[in-house]
Amino acid sequence: RGIRVGYTPDVLTDATAELSVALLLSACRRLPEAAKQGKRGVPELRLHTGGCGGWTTWKPLWMCGYGLSDSTVGIIGLGRIGQAIARRLKPFGVKKFLYTGSGPKPECAAEFGAEFVPLTRLAEESDFVVVSCALTPATQGMCNKDFFSRMKKTSVFVNTSRGAVVNQEDLYDALAQGQIAAAGLDVTTPEPLPTDHPLLSLKNCVILPHIGSATYATRNTMAVLAANNLLAGLRGEPMPHELKL
Amino acid sequence: RGIRVGYTPDVLTDATAELSVALLLSACRRLPEAAKQGKRGVPELRLHTGGCGGWTTWKPLWMCGYGLSDSTVGIIGLGRIGQAIARRLKPFGVKKFLYTGSGPKPECAAEFGAEFVPLTRLAEESDFVVVSCALTPATQGMCNKDFFSRMKKTSVFVNTSRGAVVNQEDLYDALAQGQIAAAGLDVTTPEPLPTDHPLLSLKNCVILPHIGSATYATRNTMAVLAANNLLAGLRGEPMPHELKL
Repeated sequence: RGIRVGYTPDVLTDATAELSVALLLSACRRLPEAAKQGKRGVPELRLHTGGCGGWTTWKPLWMCGYGLSDSTVGIIGLGRIGQAIARRLKPFGVKKFLYTGSGPKPECAAEFGAEFVPLTRLAEESDFVVVSCALTPATQGMCNKDFFSRMKKTSVFVNTSRGAVVNQEDLYDALAQGQIAAAGLDVTTPEPLPTDHPLLSLKNCVILPHIGSATYATRNTMAVLAANNLLAGLRGEPMPHELKL
Repeated sequence: RGIRVGYTPDVLTDATAELSVALLLSACRRLPEAAKQGKRGVPELRLHTGGCGGWTTWKPLWMCGYGLSDSTVGIIGLGRIGQAIARRLKPFGVKKFLYTGSGPKPECAAEFGAEFVPLTRLAEESDFVVVSCALTPATQGMCNKDFFSRMKKTSVFVNTSRGAVVNQEDLYDALAQGQIAAAGLDVTTPEPLPTDHPLLSLKNCVILPHIGSATYATRNTMAVLAANNLLAGLRGEPMPHELKL
């Protein structure tokens, strides 16, 4: 008998899906860039706003982004979190959901009218690509030069799964060269990302420090579940959630 | 006969509702603050991160925010945009919608199970307050010291309507003193907000430069509608949308 291990499944689905939508909207509607424009007089930020002109009078296309209305959303990995993301995005006027993944076809795909497609078609047809799959040998580096080159110039890429699903050098090139419009990342390789990493220099890339599950409610639920696992283990009783290998 | 005036109604409902949700999520999940933590090595930002410690190893409550799961959302002004906001927020697990406003009770309130309440009760019971009403003599300065003092310490305030609905000095005090958790503003008085305004110095206040309708699709639709109004006017024909006083 080895050491018993408890874990806390399922508790972070809602918080992570919520953060995924937050990141998608921040990237497509250019929130960090727009917020900086309002602070253009702050000396240490003047550097970044450069010749943009900042917030002055109304201009028809200033700070415009790409909205979800009538869009096609491609979800890589329509598992628990992917489904929770789709459910939240649907009322924003999404026209079509595409998905790909290696698992069994989820029953809920019908709820969203989601169509299973090969990865290449998902890249080509999606206005938004959201990565919510597990990191496996098959998904490692899956979002690479070939993938980004198939995406639309107006499309937005979001990753809230694991950093290593993405080839970050290829993503940098795609963003810097305008092959895609914007990206939002809650996960990177490595974590923390070195503060001199080129991705951090791009105005069309929003990078968060892996806060997918960071709500007080979720972290409290995790803590209670972990404590109950521990107490059961110490008493020699079955744990509420025990890892079985 | 005076000068005929065309306008472009209804076209910005979706874009503005989308931006309202983006702003709400950015504020409650602390996106700008979290993004800065990932850049803590950037010299001109070191100032802002201060003693926060930046992105290091996992810590249970680091960068935690307040999510929408099981929350109560109060909407001030359940008109076209307010309804579109509620429709988008519902699948995030909102438990209860409250609303207030001077217009006729919208039929759609039942769709969200939204309850009409006095403004004071909306302030007291909401975890999120979203302002989407018109600016009128009755709503000017309505969100003031008394209003914020009734809100929960964990609550988040969002305004995407008109800046003058809010007493900005009172909002600053509420945010600085921790009477409320965070705020997101797409509108201010004046616009642009002076870059030395105290609200811009708060880490729990996200301020955008009035980009509610700033999507390429929406601005194109507005431009086409404006052009059609103009052409009809020049031809002496009825405009698609003409202001009648």
